[in-house]
Amino acid sequence: MDLLNTYLIYLIPVFGLVGIIVMAIKSAWVTKQETGDASMNQLAGYIADGAMAFLRAEWKILSYFVVVAGILLAWSGTTVATSSPVIAISFVIGAFLSAFAGYLGMRIATKSNVRTTQAAKTSLAQALKVSFTGGTVMGLGVAGLAIIGLGSLFIVFYQMYVVNVTGSSVNGEAMAKALDVLAGFSLGAESIALFARVGGGIYTKAADVGADLVGKVEAGIPEDDVRNPATIADNVGDNVGDVAGMGADLFGSYVATMLATMVLGREIVSADNFGGIAPVLLPMVIAGLGLIFSIVGAAMVRIKKETDSVQNALNVGNWTSIVLTAVATYFVVQWMLPTTEMHLTRDLDANGVLKAGSLVFTKNGVFGSILVGLVVGTLMSIITEYYTAMGKRPVMSIIRQSSTGHATNIIGGLAIGMESTVLPILVLAAGIYGSYFFAGLYGVAIAAAGMMATTAMQLAIDAFGPIADNAGGIAEMSQLPPEVRERTDNLDAVGNTTAATGKGFAIASAALTSLALFAAFVGVAGIEHIDIYKANVLAGLFVGGMIPFIFSALCISAVGRAAMAMVEEVRRQFREIPGIMEYKARPEYEKCVEISTKASIREMVAPGLIALITPIVIGFVFGPEVLGGLLAGVTVSGVLMGIFQSNAGGAWDNAKKSFEKGVEINGEIYYKKSEPHKASVTGDTVGDPFKDTSGPSMNILIKLMSIVSLVIAPHLNTADNTNKMMQKQEKVQSMNVHTIRADKKI
Amino acid sequence: MDLLNTYLIYLIPVFGLVGIIVMAIKSAWVTKQETGDASMNQLAGYIADGAMAFLRAEWKILSYFVVVAGILLAWSGTTVATSSPVIAISFVIGAFLSAFAGYLGMRIATKSNVRTTQAAKTSLAQALKVSFTGGTVMGLGVAGLAIIGLGSLFIVFYQMYVVNVTGSSVNGEAMAKALDVLAGFSLGAESIALFARVGGGIYTKAADVGADLVGKVEAGIPEDDVRNPATIADNVGDNVGDVAGMGADLFGSYVATMLATMVLGREIVSADNFGGIAPVLLPMVIAGLGLIFSIVGAAMVRIKKETDSVQNALNVGNWTSIVLTAVATYFVVQWMLPTTEMHLTRDLDANGVLKAGSLVFTKNGVFGSILVGLVVGTLMSIITEYYTAMGKRPVMSIIRQSSTGHATNIIGGLAIGMESTVLPILVLAAGIYGSYFFAGLYGVAIAAAGMMATTAMQLAIDAFGPIADNAGGIAEMSQLPPEVRERTDNLDAVGNTTAATGKGFAIASAALTSLALFAAFVGVAGIEHIDIYKANVLAGLFVGGMIPFIFSALCISAVGRAAMAMVEEVRRQFREIPGIMEYKARPEYEKCVEISTKASIREMVAPGLIALITPIVIGFVFGPEVLGGLLAGVTVSGVLMGIFQSNAGGAWDNAKKSFEKGVEINGEIYYKKSEPHKASVTGDTVGDPFKDTSGPSMNILIKLMSIVSLVIAPHLNTADNTNKMMQKQEKVQSMNVHTIRADKKI
Repeated sequence: MDLLNTYLIYLIPVFGLVGIIVMAIKSAWVTKQETGDASMNQLAGYIADGAMAFLRAEWKILSYFVVVAGILLAWSGTTVATSSPVIAISFVIGAFLSAFAGYLGMRIATKSNVRTTQAAKTSLAQALKVSFTGGTVMGLGVAGLAIIGLGSLFIVFYQMYVVNVTGSSVNGEAMAKALDVLAGFSLGAESIALFARVGGGIYTKAADVGADLVGKVEAGIPEDDVRNPATIADNVGDNVGDVAGMGADLFGSYVATMLATMVLGREIVSADNFGGIAPVLLPMVIAGLGLIFSIVGAAMVRIKKETDSVQNALNVGNWTSIVLTAVATYFVVQWMLPTTEMHLTRDLDANGVLKAGSLVFTKNGVFGSILVGLVVGTLMSIITEYYTAMGKRPVMSIIRQSSTGHATNIIGGLAIGMESTVLPILVLAAGIYGSYFFAGLYGVAIAAAGMMATTAMQLAIDAFGPIADNAGGIAEMSQLPPEVRERTDNLDAVGNTTAATGKGFAIASAALTSLALFAAFVGVAGIEHIDIYKANVLAGLFVGGMIPFIFSALCISAVGRAAMAMVEEVRRQFREIPGIMEYKARPEYEKCVEISTKASIREMVAPGLIALITPIVIGFVFGPEVLGGLLAGVTVSGVLMGIFQSNAGGAWDNAKKSFEKGVEINGEIYYKKSEPHKASVTGDTVGDPFKDTSGPSMNILIKLMSIVSLVIAPHLNTADNTNKMMQKQEKVQSMNVHTIRADKKI
Repeated sequence: MDLLNTYLIYLIPVFGLVGIIVMAIKSAWVTKQETGDASMNQLAGYIADGAMAFLRAEWKILSYFVVVAGILLAWSGTTVATSSPVIAISFVIGAFLSAFAGYLGMRIATKSNVRTTQAAKTSLAQALKVSFTGGTVMGLGVAGLAIIGLGSLFIVFYQMYVVNVTGSSVNGEAMAKALDVLAGFSLGAESIALFARVGGGIYTKAADVGADLVGKVEAGIPEDDVRNPATIADNVGDNVGDVAGMGADLFGSYVATMLATMVLGREIVSADNFGGIAPVLLPMVIAGLGLIFSIVGAAMVRIKKETDSVQNALNVGNWTSIVLTAVATYFVVQWMLPTTEMHLTRDLDANGVLKAGSLVFTKNGVFGSILVGLVVGTLMSIITEYYTAMGKRPVMSIIRQSSTGHATNIIGGLAIGMESTVLPILVLAAGIYGSYFFAGLYGVAIAAAGMMATTAMQLAIDAFGPIADNAGGIAEMSQLPPEVRERTDNLDAVGNTTAATGKGFAIASAALTSLALFAAFVGVAGIEHIDIYKANVLAGLFVGGMIPFIFSALCISAVGRAAMAMVEEVRRQFREIPGIMEYKARPEYEKCVEISTKASIREMVAPGLIALITPIVIGFVFGPEVLGGLLAGVTVSGVLMGIFQSNAGGAWDNAKKSFEKGVEINGEIYYKKSEPHKASVTGDTVGDPFKDTSGPSMNILIKLMSIVSLVIAPHLNTADNTNKMMQKQEKVQSMNVHTIRADKKI
């Protein structure tokens, strides 16, 4: 049966549409909620305006980038047979949808924050409902857009290339071209994600660190105090970094995972009822199911009494969506995949006979891989929580080491961060091994797809944290009664934990996705091995391993520089505007917003270009195998640096937070403002750029470099530069010999 | 001509013997120098006793390890044809000589320190002469022992295995066995080096951090003050960490580099005048030449006036030895290697015809590789100096970031450390590429050998720093006139720079050596590729990349714990022993020495075992190719973490030191005790374990894991576990199919 005669392919965008409709309903509900008094609305207005100002500035720069990159892509698409200039359109749509997903999230977040504050006047249950619904809107928006975009573009492109051919089976050539062009969609999405994550991350931490250093430390006023000129910038940062940045990030991941699985699925010989392309359609179907069950799970998140556990409510919703998706996936796999064994096209010899020792796998193997993915994701979240949660051994050890000063606090946090790489790496290695064991490299990819299926729910849980954080900020700035702040603080504390587990999940999915993209790249580039026993491939591995280090260095030093500029501006305002401290004069919030905006836009360019340009240069100069070495180096080192930085930052943060309730060290109890607490503030400040700027960017870095490689792979396939080098080498060697002989004669 | 008829092979140990004789003469000269007054001698005695106490405690533990490992090696040597139980003897000799090299260095250092103090009473020139001669004794001892050990064992073992065979050409089987058994020598040397470096590193930094935190910060007494109970432990630490640890470290590197090159040289088909084994002998000959020219270079290190530059004097000596060695190497290569092209045995097909596309190289290619090695070593030193020297951009940026507090100082240092990986990695990648280009993997190895040739001189320059540091400590504790301390401080400051450049050099040589060992491992294990496109190899790469993280975490948290114990002991002594502050009571130095000794011995075990056991487990469970992936991961991540930590630590140290002379930040000048200076002290303390414990251990970690793999390689060759796994997988897959079919029937 031809692909376009399969109703299933049209069902996929419908899943996405359902998500978008539910999103619209929930969004309307949030908008309907009360917004509180004029002061609250004014502050919320400042935050929303600041966030929009940042997005506009970012979009302006990125639109230049999209145009230039689009033109290059269109031109390059004309140069090889397996690609097409249409890839540029696909790229632009991907970039647009990614930016749009970030915008949607940011808009609902800046609406939900003040409404959550207002709801927190009545009850915790109501505050949770408003903030979590805000998060759900974002989650459904991101997942819905991704599925609609990918699903409908796949139909359109396939139809476009298949048009001149008639036949009853799936047209392989059209499919190859359609997937190649779809890679542009993923490239667009992931490029925007990188800039959004890095730019947003620099913004939020420059404002946060700057506000804290002068406000809390020098002026002695509390966090989120309305007198602090940087406080609006700080709250804007939560929206542009933690919300818009994260939205674009997960949109990119989601698309990349599906795409990589589809590309690998294309190579599978499968006797299924969908013209042999069930393995290609499967990841999109799983994503669609995950979206539907995320809606179900989200409906379960509610509490009744003030004393109910918010964390439990989230867990119930999360587990509901994961378990339902897993069960549904089992039946879908049974239905879609054939009962016969599957194998890869490349494992057939010239006579169509399967080569000895080739990998064969079954539908149960594929489902096994999906289960591996779910287990890996869950374990990664649990481990991350252990390393960053209050009261557990890692955070307690940092607290103890705060008693001997700033330096030992830092040493303790760095050691915990490094140590925290061990279990995740072992889980990941076992996951790679296990999912490969069940279904080869397609298994690795589908494991990632399974893990990412409930992205909508994950994102809802992730996004509600910053909304609650902002709600607390508005409560503080509007000087509302303490019980309001207590309720938002309760939500915010849960948000900190979900942020940490969300990061563990994001790193695991990024690692598996990158490996899937890596495998897809190897297939498209037409290379057989990536042999690190070759000196040039090994050199590539070294250079790749270094990229996450320079990328992190650029990110955290950008935060350092921007924070210092912020410190100077806040000091200037305190000095030059009389009456701020007595609430008589309004600080110039917009100046601080502008500093953060300009700095983040300026500083996001260099790291972004490194990620985009390195694979292109290495690929064209040294060939696809060296590029493969580079990608492996980036992935390994990026995953390690990501885990190290995120967990160190999270642990420092919670070590500091522990002092708020008082902690016991050697029999004495220490509170805020004690010497150990001051040491812990240092650790928290160091951890800020670690956990919110460079750490989470590692995910996007490794995925983006893999996607760029995948996009250029067809071009590398035609020019095997490695061979050229070897020939050149032989030539030089024989030149040497001639020289020697000439010497001898003289 | 048979190998044993070649006079050259007997010449190699003679080179070593010359080194040892010159060492003895210089050592006698140092011993003859004046030792100063009774107080100075008493303090020097405490230091020497403390250092001996540590070495004895360390040797006790290590002797158990050597016995157990030796028995296991002897047993394993009986199980495969290409090895022999004699490897255990070789291992024990290597371990003994490594420990002895450390002991020699430590003894001369604890003699030279007080004599340098005494010499500093007269002139800077004399102080330099005494301290540098002390360093030279150590350098010559280490290099001499290594060459004698390796050279003479090679003769003995070859003779042992060749005995039953008569013939005129080199006996390949005997050579293979001899080199295999020699790998045990390197394993012994490197194991001891790891424990010595880690144990010594923990010792010195626990004492240093502990002494500073209570002495300088809490009690307000200067560094090296005789009233500080931890001051003797601090000075002992300089000897056991920076001297004995470094001696064992470089002994191990030196041996590993030569061994790896010899193993790779064995595979070369060379029509030379030494029975075809000139490539095997070459690295030892180059090392011998380097030793001789190090003696020449060391003789050039002298100054005349107080105002002469000590750095220049060292540079003259260093460059003299490097240039002379390079020139001599050119002629030796021309003489030893054939005028015909060389290639590898494995590149011949069954009929002895060279396969198409095989690598061929010439003697000029080999010399080209050696030059590449020298250039890489020089560039690495220059880059390291740039990133850690006072007055350059990196250190200046940390100074500026100290003005906004502890946290920004730390962020600045971490960013500089990460950034500082870029150029070294590019140089290294170019070096790998270049040396491979000239002479294949043998070229990579011989590049490392060329770089390491002047180890004696490098070590002399490295070791004089801690001697001068100790001399300053004795001057301070004995309350000598300020000009004495000024002179030793002058030497110490130069020592800080040479320590930094020495580390750059050590990392470069370790990286190249590891690659050479890696290549040797692949050859001996009998695998063709290490293909990271395979999921299990990739999983190995991930796990390997993680090892340097957990190793660093263990090292720095050990320092943190031991330093806290030291802090508590010093606080206790100040509290419980009346009169310390008034110089009326002598602090209990020996208690602090004991704390450092016990902590370091206890804490060195876990990281050491990780390095030793991981490759064995991975190799036997998952096979040689996965182990290859693991090694690549360890090497890449270890080199990165080594550079990051060493340079961050060095930059923080010099940022702090800059405040002693005063630094300008935004128009104001800040000195010691200012707020920015206090922030810089935090950075320095964080950097201490980075630059002196975990950072420099990375070199040994990556080499040791490679050597362990090389030693177990013959065992892996007989049992190709990867195939077993694949078979098992197929079995499981078909089980799945049966299960499904059974389901269907029901």
